[in-house]
Amino acid sequence: MKIDRARLEYLKKDAVQGFTRYLGLVPVSLKPGDFVTRIKLQKRHFQQDGFAHAGLIATMADHTAGYASYSLVPESRRILTIEYKINYFQPAEGEYLECHGHVTKPGKNILFTEAEVYSIKGKDRKLVARAMHTMASVPATRVSRSSSTPAESND
Amino acid sequence: MKIDRARLEYLKKDAVQGFTRYLGLVPVSLKPGDFVTRIKLQKRHFQQDGFAHAGLIATMADHTAGYASYSLVPESRRILTIEYKINYFQPAEGEYLECHGHVTKPGKNILFTEAEVYSIKGKDRKLVARAMHTMASVPATRVSRSSSTPAESND
Amino acid sequence: MKIDRARLEYLKKDAVQGFTRYLGLVPVSLKPGDFVTRIKLQKRHFQQDGFAHAGLIATMADHTAGYASYSLVPESRRILTIEYKINYFQPAEGEYLECHGHVTKPGKNILFTEAEVYSIKGKDRKLVARAMHTMASVPATRVSRSSSTPAESND
Amino acid sequence: MKIDRARLEYLKKDAVQGFTRYLGLVPVSLKPGDFVTRIKLQKRHFQQDGFAHAGLIATMADHTAGYASYSLVPESRRILTIEYKINYFQPAEGEYLECHGHVTKPGKNILFTEAEVYSIKGKDRKLVARAMHTMASVPATRVSRSSSTPAESND
Repeated sequence: MKIDRARLEYLKKDAVQGFTRYLGLVPVSLKPGDFVTRIKLQKRHFQQDGFAHAGLIATMADHTAGYASYSLVPESRRILTIEYKINYFQPAEGEYLECHGHVTKPGKNILFTEAEVYSIKGKDRKLVARAMHTMASVPATRVSRSSSTPAESND
Repeated sequence: MKIDRARLEYLKKDAVQGFTRYLGLVPVSLKPGDFVTRIKLQKRHFQQDGFAHAGLIATMADHTAGYASYSLVPESRRILTIEYKINYFQPAEGEYLECHGHVTKPGKNILFTEAEVYSIKGKDRKLVARAMHTMASVPATRVSRSSSTPAESND
Repeated sequence: MKIDRARLEYLKKDAVQGFTRYLGLVPVSLKPGDFVTRIKLQKRHFQQDGFAHAGLIATMADHTAGYASYSLVPESRRILTIEYKINYFQPAEGEYLECHGHVTKPGKNILFTEAEVYSIKGKDRKLVARAMHTMASVPATRVSRSSSTPAESND
Repeated sequence: MKIDRARLEYLKKDAVQGFTRYLGLVPVSLKPGDFVTRIKLQKRHFQQDGFAHAGLIATMADHTAGYASYSLVPESRRILTIEYKINYFQPAEGEYLECHGHVTKPGKNILFTEAEVYSIKGKDRKLVARAMHTMASVPATRVSRSSSTPAESND
C-alpha cells in the first residue's frame, strides 16, 4: 500500500480531537507505522501523589499506537483497540511526556503495536511505561454509533 | 485491619482530584476492597469515531481499582499501579460509564485487582471492558515527587 | 449454530494430543463455551522450588480456553491463540490442578476467553491463577504447516 | 552486586530440572540479566495443527526471563512469576525454538522482564512471540511447599 505524505499529514491532525485534544496531546512526527506524540504536563494531569496519572500515560500509549496503525491501513478502514497490557516502570513527573508508538506486526484485520512513554525534564529522559496492544482494523462503514463490537466487526 | 466509615468517606472524596476531577469521575459507593464510580459521557470523552475513548475507560478501571485497593491498606500507605491488562468487548457509547473495581488478592505490598466497565443508556447496560491490575502498596514517605520507582518502593 | 453432543465428545478427545497428552491433561466436562480439565501433579510438572511450573498452569489455561472456543465455532474453523495475560495468585501445589475455561465474548473471527486454575489437595481448593485470552478463529484451510500467521489468517 | 562466573554456571544448570527438563529446554548463554535458551522441536511439543503449542512457547519465555532475573538477585533469594502477557505473532514451526529473556527493570522485590521467542528452520529465523513479565524476588526461606503466596511473600 502506498502511503502518501498528504495522508500522513491528515492523520497527524486527525489524532488530536475529542479526548486527546482535551488532554493536550501534540503530534510530533508520523511515519508509516511509527508515531511520536507529546503532552506538556500540567496539574490537571496528576494523580493524588503529584505524578502523571497512569491513565493519562495509558491513553497516550494507546492513542499513539492506534494512529501508528492508522498509517498502515487503507482510508476506508478505522482502528479500534481490542486489548492491551501496560507496565509502569516508575512514577512519571517532569515537563513533558513523550510517546513512541509503532506497529510490530501489521495485518489486514489485526495489528500488533507497542509503545514506550518517556518523562522529560530538561535533558533528563526516563522510560516510564511500555505497552503492547492488539488493534482491530475495521471497515469504516461498520463503525457508527449504532455499530457492533470491534470483535464482531472483524467478521 | 479495621476500616472505619470515616476513612471510606475520606477516600471516596480523595479519589476525585487532579486528572480524575478533570475527567468528571464521580464516586458512587466504596466498601472495603470494592469501589463503584461513574462518568457522565460528554463530547470531550470521545475518540474519532464518537465512542468513549479507550484511554478514558482504562483510566476509570485503573483508578477505581486503585481506590478499592486504598481501602484495604493502612493510612500510612499509598497505592501505585504496577501494570495492567484491559480487554475491550465493544465500543462504548451511551449516557454514562459505570465502573466496578475490586481487590481479588490483597497483600501487604502487592494487591491484585480487577475492574469491569459498563456503558449505560436508559435501561440498557453493556459490559464494555474488563481489566486485571497489579497494584503496589508503598509507604507514603517514599512517594514524593523526588521519589524512586514503584518497584524500588517495594524494597 | 447448533452444537451437537457428538461434536462435543469429539472435541473433548481432540483436546488431548501432542503437547497436552505429554503433560497429562485430562478433559472433565465440555459444554458449549465452557470446558473443565485436570492434571494430576507429578514431579515432572514442578519448577525449582517444588511448585507446579507457571508454564504448566499457563498451558492449561490457554488450552482449556482454546477448546472452550472450539465448541462455539463451525467444524471448518480452527482456533489459534493471539495473546493472553495471566496472573498468579499463589504458588501451586497439591494433588491436582483443575482449570475452568470459558468464552466471555464469542465472535466470528475473534473470541475473548477467560480461565481460572485451581490447585486441589484433598478437600482444599485454591485459586492459583486467572487468565484472559484473545483467540482467533481461522478457516481450517489456512492452518497448515506452511501457513501464514494467525493475524494474517484473519484477513 | 558482584555476579561471579561460578554463580552464572550454576544457574545455567539449575534452569534445567523438573518441568523444563521434561520439555527439553537447553541453556545457551547466561549473562547478568540476559539468558538465551533453546528447545529442539519434537512431536510431543505440538498442538492439534502441528505447530509448537502456545503453552510451550509461554513456558520458555517465562522460564528464560525468570532465570535472567535470578542472575541479578542474591543467592538467598528465589524468583516467582507474578504475572505476564504474551503476544503470538505467528504459528511456530521449524527445527528449534530460541528464546531471549532479559530484565528490563531490576528491583529488590519486583523485577520486570521481557522475552522474545524465535522459530528457527535452517537459516530462517522468525519472531513468533513476545512476552512482558513481572517477577517477584522472595527470600528463599519463604519459598517452601507450605509457603504463602508470591504476593504475600513480598510482605
